[in-house]
Amino acid sequence: MKEKLSIVKIGGNIIEDENALQAFLKLFSNLEGKKILVHGGGKRATHIASKLGIESKMVNGRRITDAETLEVITMVYGGLVNKNVVAKLQALNTNAIGLTGADVNSIQSDKRPVKDIDFGFVGDVKAVAHKSIDKLIQADFTPVFCAITHDGNGQLLNTNADTITSQVAVGMSALYNTSIYYCFELNGVLEDINDKNSVVKHINTKTYQDLLAKGIIADGMLPKLENCFDALRGGVNSINMGNTSMLTQENDNFTTITL
Amino acid sequence: MKEKLSIVKIGGNIIEDENALQAFLKLFSNLEGKKILVHGGGKRATHIASKLGIESKMVNGRRITDAETLEVITMVYGGLVNKNVVAKLQALNTNAIGLTGADVNSIQSDKRPVKDIDFGFVGDVKAVAHKSIDKLIQADFTPVFCAITHDGNGQLLNTNADTITSQVAVGMSALYNTSIYYCFELNGVLEDINDKNSVVKHINTKTYQDLLAKGIIADGMLPKLENCFDALRGGVNSINMGNTSMLTQENDNFTTITL
Repeated sequence: MKEKLSIVKIGGNIIEDENALQAFLKLFSNLEGKKILVHGGGKRATHIASKLGIESKMVNGRRITDAETLEVITMVYGGLVNKNVVAKLQALNTNAIGLTGADVNSIQSDKRPVKDIDFGFVGDVKAVAHKSIDKLIQADFTPVFCAITHDGNGQLLNTNADTITSQVAVGMSALYNTSIYYCFELNGVLEDINDKNSVVKHINTKTYQDLLAKGIIADGMLPKLENCFDALRGGVNSINMGNTSMLTQENDNFTTITL
Repeated sequence: MKEKLSIVKIGGNIIEDENALQAFLKLFSNLEGKKILVHGGGKRATHIASKLGIESKMVNGRRITDAETLEVITMVYGGLVNKNVVAKLQALNTNAIGLTGADVNSIQSDKRPVKDIDFGFVGDVKAVAHKSIDKLIQADFTPVFCAITHDGNGQLLNTNADTITSQVAVGMSALYNTSIYYCFELNGVLEDINDKNSVVKHINTKTYQDLLAKGIIADGMLPKLENCFDALRGGVNSINMGNTSMLTQENDNFTTITL
């Protein structure tokens, strides 16, 4: 049987709150077994870009990554956020190593083709070097990925952190029994959006159709869950969604998704 | 006999010149055998700090690293410069991995004690985890260090790139036959500062005394060479100083220092 590997993703809301980040990093450090952390960047990049006089360009609510914005993202996600997370993990005795997709050529992507919108320096993942990432894991290092990949020709590319999480998990499934933990603001997928405790504890391919039919999964949750099922079909064992306490044994009130 | 390991250091003048950087990275990629790159940051951090409205504070010609300045250094050295160098090396088929001293706990330092001057978040190297760095090298990765270390308690620290180079080389000497290559503007140590071709090709402990007596080594060169002899006494096999073409077989007009 394959060994277990946990891939944990945190978003900007945790990254930007010093206390929440420290509390999360303790939970992550205490998580047993082999593991990988993926972090988003949050609004800090927008804030620093604006201080540098770089306007954030949005088209249909989506950010355009021009050359200047990519520089800021590389500074903030790849430098400031990633290296501070690594230093804090080291203080918690987790032997972390901070990575972009360029490091050990871990995640290659294609610059998104221009159709209606030119998203600029945005990458769609095409290859995860699972053997190279595994060399780090086998050396007892804990990879910490930021949301940056590269095209193999020297160009860094801004890449969605949820996508990096699922693609790395799919890649590592060749070697491990992989579980994704998407940490977010909610306790999980909710039956009733107004009741934060109405968590749907288990979703599989069949019950997913029922939830869709009842209109329980809609809006922003829909693409998230579609991506989850793609990852599961790609070999990921289970996907968990909830608040950070799902990393502990004490909380079982979160959503687990399987095929 | 121990295997050879080259530790190459480049400064801000190369980092800041796109063409010079690309030419150097080609030479570095072609350098045979196991190797490590260390880069400084140059004036880009000062430039971005000033854009962000952060004043560069100097005391007796030395930069003070306050909390805001450390953030900029972490963004620029650890993010922008380091990750672009890694992506460019990947394009040259060198499987690079970008590191601060926090990554794999590779370089721990002590925050410099306050005496006459409070230098702020500046670190003096106290431990190099040569076994962890070697795990990366043994996995056929090429470490690329920026000039940042950590204190083991979650604090990143700004650290001189020349010092990182010599300390990493001393640490790795436990496992390898190490050679340092300090790439800089001059062709080497010069007999006559006005004649750029008057390179002193070999310096050892004995000839060093002669050069000192003749006043050939003075000013900025003096601390550099003192540091070199410290590193050699620490176990480094040889130290080379010159322009980047010393990495090729074609140029033998540079300075080699041995005990």
